[in-house]
Amino acid sequence: MDVKVPLDVPYERRQSYIRNFNIMTHETGRLALFAGDQKIEHLNDDFFGPNIPIDDSSPEHLFKIAQNAKIGAFASQIGLIARYGIDYPKIPYVIKINSKTNLVKKDLKDPLSTAMLDIEQIDRFKKQSGLNIVGVGYTIYPGSEFEYIMLKEAAHIIFEAHQLGLIAIIWSYPRGKSVVDEYDPHLVAGACGVAACLGADFVKVNFPKKEGVNIFEAFKEAVLAAGRTRVMCAGGSSKEPKAFLEELYNQVHISGVQGAATGRNIHQKPLKEAISFANAIYAILIENKSVEEAYKIYQEG
Amino acid sequence: MDVKVPLDVPYERRQSYIRNFNIMTHETGRLALFAGDQKIEHLNDDFFGPNIPIDDSSPEHLFKIAQNAKIGAFASQIGLIARYGIDYPKIPYVIKINSKTNLVKKDLKDPLSTAMLDIEQIDRFKKQSGLNIVGVGYTIYPGSEFEYIMLKEAAHIIFEAHQLGLIAIIWSYPRGKSVVDEYDPHLVAGACGVAACLGADFVKVNFPKKEGVNIFEAFKEAVLAAGRTRVMCAGGSSKEPKAFLEELYNQVHISGVQGAATGRNIHQKPLKEAISFANAIYAILIENKSVEEAYKIYQEG
Amino acid sequence: MDVKVPLDVPYERRQSYIRNFNIMTHETGRLALFAGDQKIEHLNDDFFGPNIPIDDSSPEHLFKIAQNAKIGAFASQIGLIARYGIDYPKIPYVIKINSKTNLVKKDLKDPLSTAMLDIEQIDRFKKQSGLNIVGVGYTIYPGSEFEYIMLKEAAHIIFEAHQLGLIAIIWSYPRGKSVVDEYDPHLVAGACGVAACLGADFVKVNFPKKEGVNIFEAFKEAVLAAGRTRVMCAGGSSKEPKAFLEELYNQVHISGVQGAATGRNIHQKPLKEAISFANAIYAILIENKSVEEAYKIYQEG
Amino acid sequence: MDVKVPLDVPYERRQSYIRNFNIMTHETGRLALFAGDQKIEHLNDDFFGPNIPIDDSSPEHLFKIAQNAKIGAFASQIGLIARYGIDYPKIPYVIKINSKTNLVKKDLKDPLSTAMLDIEQIDRFKKQSGLNIVGVGYTIYPGSEFEYIMLKEAAHIIFEAHQLGLIAIIWSYPRGKSVVDEYDPHLVAGACGVAACLGADFVKVNFPKKEGVNIFEAFKEAVLAAGRTRVMCAGGSSKEPKAFLEELYNQVHISGVQGAATGRNIHQKPLKEAISFANAIYAILIENKSVEEAYKIYQEG
Amino acid sequence: MDVKVPLDVPYERRQSYIRNFNIMTHETGRLALFAGDQKIEHLNDDFFGPNIPIDDSSPEHLFKIAQNAKIGAFASQIGLIARYGIDYPKIPYVIKINSKTNLVKKDLKDPLSTAMLDIEQIDRFKKQSGLNIVGVGYTIYPGSEFEYIMLKEAAHIIFEAHQLGLIAIIWSYPRGKSVVDEYDPHLVAGACGVAACLGADFVKVNFPKKEGVNIFEAFKEAVLAAGRTRVMCAGGSSKEPKAFLEELYNQVHISGVQGAATGRNIHQKPLKEAISFANAIYAILIENKSVEEAYKIYQEG
Repeated sequence: MDVKVPLDVPYERRQSYIRNFNIMTHETGRLALFAGDQKIEHLNDDFFGPNIPIDDSSPEHLFKIAQNAKIGAFASQIGLIARYGIDYPKIPYVIKINSKTNLVKKDLKDPLSTAMLDIEQIDRFKKQSGLNIVGVGYTIYPGSEFEYIMLKEAAHIIFEAHQLGLIAIIWSYPRGKSVVDEYDPHLVAGACGVAACLGADFVKVNFPKKEGVNIFEAFKEAVLAAGRTRVMCAGGSSKEPKAFLEELYNQVHISGVQGAATGRNIHQKPLKEAISFANAIYAILIENKSVEEAYKIYQEG
Repeated sequence: MDVKVPLDVPYERRQSYIRNFNIMTHETGRLALFAGDQKIEHLNDDFFGPNIPIDDSSPEHLFKIAQNAKIGAFASQIGLIARYGIDYPKIPYVIKINSKTNLVKKDLKDPLSTAMLDIEQIDRFKKQSGLNIVGVGYTIYPGSEFEYIMLKEAAHIIFEAHQLGLIAIIWSYPRGKSVVDEYDPHLVAGACGVAACLGADFVKVNFPKKEGVNIFEAFKEAVLAAGRTRVMCAGGSSKEPKAFLEELYNQVHISGVQGAATGRNIHQKPLKEAISFANAIYAILIENKSVEEAYKIYQEG
Repeated sequence: MDVKVPLDVPYERRQSYIRNFNIMTHETGRLALFAGDQKIEHLNDDFFGPNIPIDDSSPEHLFKIAQNAKIGAFASQIGLIARYGIDYPKIPYVIKINSKTNLVKKDLKDPLSTAMLDIEQIDRFKKQSGLNIVGVGYTIYPGSEFEYIMLKEAAHIIFEAHQLGLIAIIWSYPRGKSVVDEYDPHLVAGACGVAACLGADFVKVNFPKKEGVNIFEAFKEAVLAAGRTRVMCAGGSSKEPKAFLEELYNQVHISGVQGAATGRNIHQKPLKEAISFANAIYAILIENKSVEEAYKIYQEG
Repeated sequence: MDVKVPLDVPYERRQSYIRNFNIMTHETGRLALFAGDQKIEHLNDDFFGPNIPIDDSSPEHLFKIAQNAKIGAFASQIGLIARYGIDYPKIPYVIKINSKTNLVKKDLKDPLSTAMLDIEQIDRFKKQSGLNIVGVGYTIYPGSEFEYIMLKEAAHIIFEAHQLGLIAIIWSYPRGKSVVDEYDPHLVAGACGVAACLGADFVKVNFPKKEGVNIFEAFKEAVLAAGRTRVMCAGGSSKEPKAFLEELYNQVHISGVQGAATGRNIHQKPLKEAISFANAIYAILIENKSVEEAYKIYQEG
Repeated sequence: MDVKVPLDVPYERRQSYIRNFNIMTHETGRLALFAGDQKIEHLNDDFFGPNIPIDDSSPEHLFKIAQNAKIGAFASQIGLIARYGIDYPKIPYVIKINSKTNLVKKDLKDPLSTAMLDIEQIDRFKKQSGLNIVGVGYTIYPGSEFEYIMLKEAAHIIFEAHQLGLIAIIWSYPRGKSVVDEYDPHLVAGACGVAACLGADFVKVNFPKKEGVNIFEAFKEAVLAAGRTRVMCAGGSSKEPKAFLEELYNQVHISGVQGAATGRNIHQKPLKEAISFANAIYAILIENKSVEEAYKIYQEG
């Protein structure tokens, strides 16, 4: 695929950027991201409990899926990647740089999540480990009274990641006491525009909700607002598989999104089923399959 | 034009500074700035909605205007410039270094907007990209309880930008719980003086409002207070074109301003009309045309 | 023991890491940590008062125990280690990097404890002193409104400690106004997962409490959630020796923990008894002895 | 004059320090400072309005006075100095490093004003510009809940300024919710002592007010408390010229002050009168003239 | 005296450390510190007023005493030392690195006092000035909600001071809204333990107060808790000389303290009397004289 490289990637790193982009998107421009940063974001809520298979109770479940399913990249924190990477060396990794727990509610304090590592450390880690680190991820909360801290860190991280030829993904979630409805399509479009101004290659947002409109049509605003920054939808909590795939199909073919970041809908399944479901997502996103075809992949493994 | 170079521009960068100043002002000392930082400042409010043409829904609209209209420079965030600059290499760019969203209201927290990048990164970007980056922009909010953070960053940015021969523009908006009337002409004059003390080449302020006075006469105070720092007015929300041009004419010929920073009044028009309107602004500011002549340029394209 | 070295340990420091790990765990993977950071954490409450022998009133008591008992490592602040280390050079030391007093209650302010030294200083100290410094310790408080500060410092410290081949231990205590029950097994499991995401080699948590469940079974969730990060239980306040050893035995053999961090239960005893009790803990953890055998070691010295 | 050089001036900079001190004090040890930092501190209030001549509306007025009157030095922000210095190269400049606006009242927030530049930048500027920069100024607010920030910056700035042979002036104003009466002579003496402990060469304070005492006698306490740090009084708002000169004379000859920092009383006059008044101040401070003689200088120009 | 050098003093600085320690303690291990940091801590309250001799109104009084009395070291801020040191070159100086005024009360804000200079600057100053700087001092407020800032700075300062062979003294005062009784002997013992964990060579605490106990016996807890860190008592406000000496004698001979930090009880006397009283303190602390002998020294000068 002919990749448009942003100009903050220096000449000598253009090939790295193109290579990383093509690995992540299988040369389609679309990204099937397997998101596995929830062990900080949601503590153990996503990994243990009723309706969650015991496979998911160990972090290694994530790596088994990531190694065996068709995915664009696997996003997680450096601690897990450093610990399990030695046994799962072929996964394309995205290092999620900031994370917060879900304990402090916005009534107490607007959300604030800051970088746990800087890009120089990630670069050192990439070189020392030999792992296939293709990108970095960072969450911003526009509308938080602390947004200025996160906008600054995000801009720095994107710029310095691009300097190294890495792909930069921004999780952009409007949230805080000033945010009335974080699922408003117009606000989500704003969240996409912010990520574009920061220089993100991909922006991950929550799919909006609104009564009385065709939400897939309404979401076009966000895809337009993002411009050349590619929009991905977060998978959110576990849904019925077919409904999930249908929604994804419509996001791609009506709204024009170019990726999906899926976590719980994949890993809250036993290993084999999880792999099949990741492959079904891949089929829609990368292989341009229909919902029926993708669902069949899920069912047949 | 014989440019008075401030003394924090080192000897070996004087020619760069003069070149950048002359590009931005077409050797007139007056600056027709196309302001395009609203995708963070106003989220998607300025780009999508009733009365906004669909052209404006994509960030590329801004670049198409900037490349084809007569402007002094185009101001936007580095993310957009890095992404689109490759296809719009001839635009003179001003990098807007800080931005905040409009979500957090001053009742909750006084405004605070901090630098997303430092000047060293911008210098690296300028060299690597080969783009025609002529200056930087930064917003301060005098009267915010956080003004000390922004005064410090502004002074640093201006000083270090001058060290590289770049032009520095300060957006100076008195705002916060302590500010009773941010449109008071005397306060706006104060905001201009602050920018002058920081070393700004240009200061962008909101044009004041006051009942019972000739506001163009009253605004002279601000132009005087700014001294050798050149005063520009912000365009604000969309207005009727002729009224806009008349106001601009009076700002220049009565008040003595030396620039205009126009965003929505340009980009919230279809491409061809947007270009014509930018050219009309240019006609008044740079070519010393009358309102009638400028309006004709707008109408005839 | 065949040690799985995390990939943020560079190649040339792998042998140091393996050596330190094997020293601390006596090549078993299990760590009998003698915890002696309470002189800041609890001021003088643990060292002087009714039921506390006079031996414990001087910090040297800790060093006498650490030198003469069977332990994996002794954790304390650098000030004490620098002062007494010259007379106790053979102890394997873990430097506890952050500590707070117990004076400020969470009703006044959520807990915040920051690094007193950086890893570069610890590295300098290790080289200059020649002491057998095998690792570092750091406390995080997930759920504190300041968790972002501690998550960042913890991640930095673990990464840079690994760069030097040192072992990193995280004390992980959910605490703050947002935390309802810090002894909830599910929350403790979350606290283990956070430490795993940060890259900790060991995570020290408070053993959970819950009515109506087999708490040793329930604690398995935490051991699973921690993955390859090894879980240690804090000893807490002084308990009856036999009950303590039984609990430890069950933690190891039912829950699957791989260490214990014991402070008051050891040092709040006269020297000889303290040594015997540390040896009893060691017997269970490292020598796989039964409770009866261990208790006998305690009683017979 | 035989100057006592503080020991934080290194040997190789002693001659610079002595030269700067002698320029500023005309070898008398007394400093007639022309203070021109009000465009940030008071916005445009001091420069435009009833009873203020139109001359004062442009910043250049300050430079015209400073170049043509007898003064020890002119204090202002770097932005103005960089912009006008090229046309006023002979003025001895003091760079005022921090400033705040008067918008945020102490009921909302205790005063906080931080350094806009660091000494390294000022040193670079001095070398590049070739201007006659003889010293730096910094304001502290003892009693503000943020005093720790300003004490630290002040100490750093004084130390590093001395390292370069520059003279350091501290504006010391007790202010904040904890300060009951900032004009209390005993408190003003405390403010002088603080500046002495920080290492200031000169401390500028507000002249105290107190009912029922001879205030010039009472002010001796402050001069004593400052020790070898020389005390200057701020001129404050515009006063009747003769009364001003009488007060100054008594400050010098009764209280023992060694300088005056005068702003509005000079610049809020037309150029010629402003110069004459500055010369009258100089006559008292430097030439040891009587009030009558000085007043005659003012009247006769 | 055979000095036990802490291991954060590098090999090549051990002789400096031993030299400084022996100068300060006259080879006895006991320190008669003349404390002169009150011009910031208490503003001018300690230096001017009823019952304070006029000698004390100038800072030079402190230096005259320090040069002519028998003391271990004189502690003050760098500004005074840099200004007067040239005339008082033989005094062993301790630079007090942080100080705050007494204006902000703890009801408004918990105490916070931060370093005004870093150790690198002090090292530069020591070398450039040639003064006999033997150590540094720093105040912590355990129990303040800002204790984490001060614990970090204290640990850094002690470590880096030791790296240079300097002696480190911690003023340790529990204070803040969370502290009920800062004179409680058990809490003071805790404050000593904290300083020991930070690595202080000496810890200065307020002598405790408690009804119904032998306070000198009770204070043994603190001396024990400090371990090898030597405990000094603050002198506090002016007391009757004989009572002061008796208390000191008991602190030494019953409690086991190894120093006294005396300020007001010395300098709030005319020069000759101040010197005699400092010598009386020295007699008890260093020369092991009785109260009667010491009192005679005071009386006979």
